[in-house]
Amino acid sequence: MGDFDRPDWSGRLRRVWRTPPADVSALVVSSPANIKYLSGFDGSAGLLLTSPDRTWLLVDGRYDRSARLSRAAGQLADVEIATLTGSVERLLSTLISDVGSGSVGFEAHHVTVATLRSWERTCVERTFVATANWIERLRIIKERTELIAIRRACAVTSDIARELGRWLREGRTEREIAWDIDEAMRRAGVTRPAFETIVASGPNSALPHARPTDRQLQRGDLVVLDFGGVLDGYCGDLTRMAGVGEVTAEARGLFEAVRAAQVAALAAVRAEAPVFEVDAAARRVLSTHGFGDAILHATGHGLGLEVHEAPRLGRRSESSDRVGEPSEREMDRLAAGMVCTIEPGAYVEGVGGVRLEDDVVVTDEGCEVLTEAPRDLLLV
Amino acid sequence: MGDFDRPDWSGRLRRVWRTPPADVSALVVSSPANIKYLSGFDGSAGLLLTSPDRTWLLVDGRYDRSARLSRAAGQLADVEIATLTGSVERLLSTLISDVGSGSVGFEAHHVTVATLRSWERTCVERTFVATANWIERLRIIKERTELIAIRRACAVTSDIARELGRWLREGRTEREIAWDIDEAMRRAGVTRPAFETIVASGPNSALPHARPTDRQLQRGDLVVLDFGGVLDGYCGDLTRMAGVGEVTAEARGLFEAVRAAQVAALAAVRAEAPVFEVDAAARRVLSTHGFGDAILHATGHGLGLEVHEAPRLGRRSESSDRVGEPSEREMDRLAAGMVCTIEPGAYVEGVGGVRLEDDVVVTDEGCEVLTEAPRDLLLV
Repeated sequence: MGDFDRPDWSGRLRRVWRTPPADVSALVVSSPANIKYLSGFDGSAGLLLTSPDRTWLLVDGRYDRSARLSRAAGQLADVEIATLTGSVERLLSTLISDVGSGSVGFEAHHVTVATLRSWERTCVERTFVATANWIERLRIIKERTELIAIRRACAVTSDIARELGRWLREGRTEREIAWDIDEAMRRAGVTRPAFETIVASGPNSALPHARPTDRQLQRGDLVVLDFGGVLDGYCGDLTRMAGVGEVTAEARGLFEAVRAAQVAALAAVRAEAPVFEVDAAARRVLSTHGFGDAILHATGHGLGLEVHEAPRLGRRSESSDRVGEPSEREMDRLAAGMVCTIEPGAYVEGVGGVRLEDDVVVTDEGCEVLTEAPRDLLLV
Repeated sequence: MGDFDRPDWSGRLRRVWRTPPADVSALVVSSPANIKYLSGFDGSAGLLLTSPDRTWLLVDGRYDRSARLSRAAGQLADVEIATLTGSVERLLSTLISDVGSGSVGFEAHHVTVATLRSWERTCVERTFVATANWIERLRIIKERTELIAIRRACAVTSDIARELGRWLREGRTEREIAWDIDEAMRRAGVTRPAFETIVASGPNSALPHARPTDRQLQRGDLVVLDFGGVLDGYCGDLTRMAGVGEVTAEARGLFEAVRAAQVAALAAVRAEAPVFEVDAAARRVLSTHGFGDAILHATGHGLGLEVHEAPRLGRRSESSDRVGEPSEREMDRLAAGMVCTIEPGAYVEGVGGVRLEDDVVVTDEGCEVLTEAPRDLLLV
């Protein structure tokens, strides 16, 4: 990554403190993606303690040297590096005594109850205050340098999508095909797959989150192919559909319904649109085609440093329809510069499942699709 | 997996309730590894609610069908499947009303502050009580079927270790070699790598958690090769060392010191030994050789469904020396049937880093090494 597209970490750290909650003089950042966004650090363990004046990266011995080297090379924000010698709580307590006198924010969606209790036991002079989506709200609108990285990740992912026909044929297993996709991504220069590549054929296609198995493709199968690459830390995420030999009229009808639902959802995307309206647009089309009961997930999700991030394009009424995901009601309207997937799906036992997924950047007038690869049912 | 080695989920669920905390009549299990251990479910999102009489798996629409299919096929415990229609909290609240009248345990190390608050807001009739390591304590001693799976994962990983010489030569990049290792693991039938394969050469070898880069191997490099495969859900984890051409006498000395430290640590492993004594045995040897300041991580960790689990073989005084890891003081003595890594390392700027890692099962007399592959410095 050249100097020209180095993230503006200091600008991001300043924006953290533009409108802090009342009486909060520091924030402990725990989410790895938030830490990476604010500092460039992407080790497997670390904490960021930020205040209006000073910011520290807390690491343990495994990362001390690499963090210092990265900072010297300009791959890390100009933060202070604090390395554990004893416990995390004690180090945190020492550093906290150097920041303002207000309370200390923590990320309630990323800190476990046990961790908070250990901090509270040790840092007794301060009150910890739960915060939600503080950094996520900054991340939701992508900067120019981020859009460059996302465009590249989506372009590489789309290139692979155009090659899918090479790997699909009757008798090959889901696992073999998934491996071919992963290998092609790697040859194209991606750092890693953004998630475990999904190749789900025949009955497995009716399971939205199937893992690749040793099942061989058979004539008549619908095949869901869902994958994406990470480049410079940012994710692409795309789903295309194939059919083996001839597919039944029913399967073809399911495909056409999902395709129409995706067109409708894409047409509903624009700055200021409530996120649930995009979801509703897809659901209306699927329901009209008789597949209202076949919808098993929301229509899309934000995309960036994480493959699933805000906003969430789901139903209006849902506080959360996924186990483990927090509500994102605060981020319920699209805005220019958001990046999200549009991926309606319908899943029918005995017929199969269809999902079509593209990545878009929201604009004032609508959206720009970043994953340009044919959306037809690829017959192999 | 044949019937004969199907995990004894019902036995495990019974053991959960053998000695519950006072007045706790149900437990919400959030840790994916704990859920998998108790039920066989390995989707990306789910909760298990267990009581002495009934156990439910809570999933969302994405997993409803696959969970039912898995249960019918005997790949899931005979639990009740509860699928979300509204929010998680509401479903949990409904189910909780069907279990005893005591309080409800939750896993304090796996539940975020935000999640606990949302449960407490909705399930107002019940008190939630923090629990720590309830299921981890069961998992720490491996059952016969688990040891079979771990032995296989370790055997496959060791087979790859014996082939390392094929991929290492001057001019090849860390990334290319990591890919070769991953491909070989896949051809050997592993489900996935247990973690991102580490190939760290020359100066990068001095960084304990380096990611593979485009750096080419050069004469004189030390090369750390750390990888492992997952088979039937269980992990292998092994580190071997190579040298490119001739290495300096200093690098050779570092290697010999780490090797001696590993021998000493292995000799300290036996049922009833305090975990910190194993760590101390390795540290003593490294200190004797003048590398006391070059130790950047603990000597080992438990291995099983997770690549890092209890017990932790670190220093006595540490409540935790890794950011994000809870204390495991309760599990500070080895016992027969535990499986752990023994992986002392020493890292010296300007010389490089050396780590040697094997997986062992603890026995009454000592331990049995599961990763049999040459430990010599592989000169390529």
